[in-house]
Amino acid sequence: MKVNGRLPINLKVVIEGEEECGSESLPVFLRERRKELDADVILVSDTAMLAPDQPSLCYALRGICYTQIEVTGPSKDLHSGHFGGAVTNPANALCAIIAALKDGDGKITVPGFYERVRAITPADRENMKALPFNEKAFIGESGSPVAAGEKGYSTLERTTVRPTLDVNGMWSGYIGEGSKTVLPSFAAAKVSMRLVPDQDAHDIFRRFEAYVKKLAPAGVTVRALDLHGAQPWITDPGHPMLEAAKRALERAWTRPPVMIREGGSIPVMAVFEETHHLPSILMGFGLDDDQVHSPNEKFSLSSFHGGTKSVAYLYEELAKSGA
Amino acid sequence: MKVNGRLPINLKVVIEGEEECGSESLPVFLRERRKELDADVILVSDTAMLAPDQPSLCYALRGICYTQIEVTGPSKDLHSGHFGGAVTNPANALCAIIAALKDGDGKITVPGFYERVRAITPADRENMKALPFNEKAFIGESGSPVAAGEKGYSTLERTTVRPTLDVNGMWSGYIGEGSKTVLPSFAAAKVSMRLVPDQDAHDIFRRFEAYVKKLAPAGVTVRALDLHGAQPWITDPGHPMLEAAKRALERAWTRPPVMIREGGSIPVMAVFEETHHLPSILMGFGLDDDQVHSPNEKFSLSSFHGGTKSVAYLYEELAKSGA
Repeated sequence: MKVNGRLPINLKVVIEGEEECGSESLPVFLRERRKELDADVILVSDTAMLAPDQPSLCYALRGICYTQIEVTGPSKDLHSGHFGGAVTNPANALCAIIAALKDGDGKITVPGFYERVRAITPADRENMKALPFNEKAFIGESGSPVAAGEKGYSTLERTTVRPTLDVNGMWSGYIGEGSKTVLPSFAAAKVSMRLVPDQDAHDIFRRFEAYVKKLAPAGVTVRALDLHGAQPWITDPGHPMLEAAKRALERAWTRPPVMIREGGSIPVMAVFEETHHLPSILMGFGLDDDQVHSPNEKFSLSSFHGGTKSVAYLYEELAKSGA
Repeated sequence: MKVNGRLPINLKVVIEGEEECGSESLPVFLRERRKELDADVILVSDTAMLAPDQPSLCYALRGICYTQIEVTGPSKDLHSGHFGGAVTNPANALCAIIAALKDGDGKITVPGFYERVRAITPADRENMKALPFNEKAFIGESGSPVAAGEKGYSTLERTTVRPTLDVNGMWSGYIGEGSKTVLPSFAAAKVSMRLVPDQDAHDIFRRFEAYVKKLAPAGVTVRALDLHGAQPWITDPGHPMLEAAKRALERAWTRPPVMIREGGSIPVMAVFEETHHLPSILMGFGLDDDQVHSPNEKFSLSSFHGGTKSVAYLYEELAKSGA
């Protein structure tokens, strides 16, 4: 606007404010406004760059199945001396259930969990190996002493093309200072699984629920809640609409972008696909050290300025390509 | 005092206000005032009755080793999509460690844990079986749907003559409403073990600490804290000093008391033994439905009045027996 006095294309802006709590309203909104929101291409800036100076286009996202396991045993908290040893402790039971969800190789044990997972081809592996991904810097940024995960896969594969299972939170009994000799009546954990094509979030939840119930020892009742889900998303990395994005990124950063897959989930992508059947450009500028979902989260100034330029060039390139 | 105008014996009263947080000060006090607090017999009223109308004298208590396991992985909370799959999740690791602390038969797997546990004799078993213990009522009072515990032992044995291991509390990551896709940097649990003669609380802590550290997977650091400990305590159920207590209870409740062992711990018993070498009478009036360490804890009026009478008669009986 500042340089040319006008935008080279028409823009429709959709702002999502609920993504971190499951995007309850957006699918309804997109379905209701399907026609008003018709377009030629969708641009989403919610992905990351492989390095601060390496523009990156994302062509696949993991989905998610976010659950809560609730284990109830005694009807009230008990004295651990008086009743300890005679009843099933729901906190111990929850730990046993969670421990049983992965085997020694880091494989998830939910029956049928990998049934629909697309195997990575030798060519995929070669492409991923060729990416300028700095594993040491990535693990360093995590603050974890070592890389660790599913046997037989690299760190980049583990975080993009392979599904995962992580405890996001758990609680039971007395969690204050010092000691209280209570045998808790209740224990719970938030457990989420990142999903990859062609896993289905609903199917995975049903399998997960059946399995954790089966793992429950005598003396406790186990309930699984489906807190939210998002389908994995993948597009053809050679899609013509992405060519405009590649040119724009190269102009802005003076180097060509790499094509990457991401480990996070953007639930609206699968919804857009369902409601609008449009090609999508995932052109994001996040960095590994952004402390995403952690204290002191930031967005880098180099990404802010480079991202602004990239998007302006993209509008020009889309106009040129006749979108 | 009201009936006879004077007490039949001399009384020294020690009030303990720190028992639920580890009795840090009392041992020091008892050592310093050893002479002033000299006596012929110690009376403690902190135990339970086998039934509301069944007076009970306790001759053994379990000890306790109360620990906190702290598992640290990444140096900060991470985005579970971006880093999930590539690093060890401390909450998953903590669950695996806790799950590994017991085997399928409910046996504690800490190496050497049972080394000093006194085996129960066939005669012990017969005595326990003869007690008017109502297992169904006991488990019913716990609010647990079934009895469950170490294989090969009865409920009464599990709660008195066998050691236990229970999670008393645990916490990690996001524990609020709904979902947050965080991979937590830290997870912790309070884990306590009830100990029986001749286990030693310090020895058990050292074994426990070494074992949980050994169980730590790559990518996390595990620390164990010794929050507090108490030695198990046992006395001769036929000790002459207990005869006065038996007579007093029979006068107050119009039926003879039973001799029982208790599952809880009274840390000061082992300290009294060390500082004063005196016989102890554990004459308590708690009931299974007292909701001990739980909301709505109560002390029954029948126990209050029956207990008051019992203690008054005990002073007379002790005076008669020349204590």
